[in-house]
Amino acid sequence: MAGKSKQDEETFRILADAPVNFYSGRISCIRSKLVDLEVEAVLFFDMKNIRYLIGFSGSDGVLLVGESRVVLMVDGRYVTQAKGEARGAEIFEYSDKIDGIVEVMTDSGLQTVGFESVAINFDHCLSLKNRLDGLELRPVSKEIGSLRAIKDQNEIELIKKAVEISSQALISTLELVRPGMSERDIALELEYRMRGEGAEKVSFETIVASGRNAALPHATPGFRKIELGDFVVIDYGAVYGGYHSDETCTFVVGNITDRQREVYGIVKDAHDRAVDSVRAGVACEEVDRIARNHIESAGLGKYFSHGTGHGVGLDVHEAPRISAESDSYLEAGMVITIEPGIYIPDLWGVRIESMVLVEENGCEILAGMPKDLRIL
Amino acid sequence: MAGKSKQDEETFRILADAPVNFYSGRISCIRSKLVDLEVEAVLFFDMKNIRYLIGFSGSDGVLLVGESRVVLMVDGRYVTQAKGEARGAEIFEYSDKIDGIVEVMTDSGLQTVGFESVAINFDHCLSLKNRLDGLELRPVSKEIGSLRAIKDQNEIELIKKAVEISSQALISTLELVRPGMSERDIALELEYRMRGEGAEKVSFETIVASGRNAALPHATPGFRKIELGDFVVIDYGAVYGGYHSDETCTFVVGNITDRQREVYGIVKDAHDRAVDSVRAGVACEEVDRIARNHIESAGLGKYFSHGTGHGVGLDVHEAPRISAESDSYLEAGMVITIEPGIYIPDLWGVRIESMVLVEENGCEILAGMPKDLRIL
Repeated sequence: MAGKSKQDEETFRILADAPVNFYSGRISCIRSKLVDLEVEAVLFFDMKNIRYLIGFSGSDGVLLVGESRVVLMVDGRYVTQAKGEARGAEIFEYSDKIDGIVEVMTDSGLQTVGFESVAINFDHCLSLKNRLDGLELRPVSKEIGSLRAIKDQNEIELIKKAVEISSQALISTLELVRPGMSERDIALELEYRMRGEGAEKVSFETIVASGRNAALPHATPGFRKIELGDFVVIDYGAVYGGYHSDETCTFVVGNITDRQREVYGIVKDAHDRAVDSVRAGVACEEVDRIARNHIESAGLGKYFSHGTGHGVGLDVHEAPRISAESDSYLEAGMVITIEPGIYIPDLWGVRIESMVLVEENGCEILAGMPKDLRIL
Repeated sequence: MAGKSKQDEETFRILADAPVNFYSGRISCIRSKLVDLEVEAVLFFDMKNIRYLIGFSGSDGVLLVGESRVVLMVDGRYVTQAKGEARGAEIFEYSDKIDGIVEVMTDSGLQTVGFESVAINFDHCLSLKNRLDGLELRPVSKEIGSLRAIKDQNEIELIKKAVEISSQALISTLELVRPGMSERDIALELEYRMRGEGAEKVSFETIVASGRNAALPHATPGFRKIELGDFVVIDYGAVYGGYHSDETCTFVVGNITDRQREVYGIVKDAHDRAVDSVRAGVACEEVDRIARNHIESAGLGKYFSHGTGHGVGLDVHEAPRISAESDSYLEAGMVITIEPGIYIPDLWGVRIESMVLVEENGCEILAGMPKDLRIL
């Protein structure tokens, strides 16, 4: 059995089980915002936020955080798990979610409650509003959207472990890559190795895009077989203790043209310049601009068709966004990606992505793969 | 390299590339509903519905289906993929999604447009409504919620192939299972084998729950090692050509108590009775009642904490629901699960799940694992 998990159970428990006071501190942080939000409590629907606030890792439920009560509402499938995992919260079992929320809110005598308006669909929200006679629901997603953006030491350790797992898996997968191997088989081997190294799952569907497929930023690994001279873009990540890694490497197979070498260099320089610009206090849009300006100055701006990066944590994409539309500023403790790319339709593409930890006076590149041009 | 994909590329292409007229038929079906819905067009946000209607398999985008125009709106990451995949649709590139929708709707001169109100979050919906001066948006999710419920022959073939892949993978994984192997390692081997058999991905995070963990209907595979006398619940599935399989087997390891044998038998009978009741025209709640009554009559009703089943297709959970709250009726061509379970907190649990194809006078159990008690 090649896939025997290397993960040390004890290490996992220490890292993944944040001390209870982590959770109570996070709940206190929400409570401290209630006055500014002009609400008596907040209803959370985003399961990652619920996990962050009380430790419950189930895939369905609702959390109410008020001044006096913290109530986790779940259906019958999750009651036992909730009792085992949720810290500092009452457990309330519902058979219908809307009924359950109405009952808990009414019993709590609340009048004005904030809710995660980006984490509930329009229909459910309308049903809920219609049932809550005399109680006002106020959208607060914007105000709490950066709740998890700044990571504490425990979270950073988990992210570093996820990065280590994924890069170890890529190193051993690369030994197999040669012309004739399909994108799907590379993705399969890489995912298997990440799990074998201790990932609880993969961060997202691994992208292995070769040749013309590399011109698709979000390609799905297909049957195409690697050929000599291909760029191969591998975008991959592992989850450890709930925390994600996210990295992209672009390799060349066998031989390389001058044009490929040139474009790789442009993306690498854009990546390096953006990384160099990262420190607390810098506007996210400024980091994006630095990467984008470099690619634009080479006349390839129209081929850089996405933002420069995003926060990573319990979600693989979370606040802050590193893009032209962002109005956020970097703060120490944020973990973000820097991932410029150039995609030339029907020809090929290059993306280079690293995760960095924002510090007061710069950033730490989280250990991962080297980003210098590598010919396989 | 053990994981060399066995999948035959040619077979995959034939099955996965539905003929163009499949898509045009599906678009016609939406158009035929416009009058009843009292709208001129429908905005789709659910990526599975978008894939179903035009074949685009990207993970972000919006589709407008009107009497005269079918427009797929995507951002820069997906333009090349959209041009390659989308059948019978114009491609419109946006940099901001809301801006893009507003532009396309305004240019089309529409006045009343239906939208998938369960597939857009409250914030986005509000932003969109605020930007659409004089244009009315009308929620139509309920009316089109069963769009994909009845499968055509091509879809059924893909589902059968997904079932075959996943059960083949389980058969070979079971050869490895013995006391001392961890839940995580069983899940890892099973997922690797599904991918090796040709799955493009797994349907959902595989559940391997042993001993006390088997009492959690939605357990995450952990470090617990299999022990003699354990029930091991394995809930797993593969995706092929976009279509999912979903099956649950419960095994016993080594030896079994009388009480375990009895409870397994109750769940198995509930499963069999529900399967026997499936045919076109039967109410979904009736199928649920048949399984539930059997478990209740054994005095264990409170330990059956979820619905009896659900439709399966491009999503692993889709219409119809087989539960006490369902107001749907079975129709020929639906593919549903039947999955009763009994979960005794802190002791153990049993779930048995099969996929069945609804027919006029009964149903076809889609090939999978036998469901008689098996001692590993």
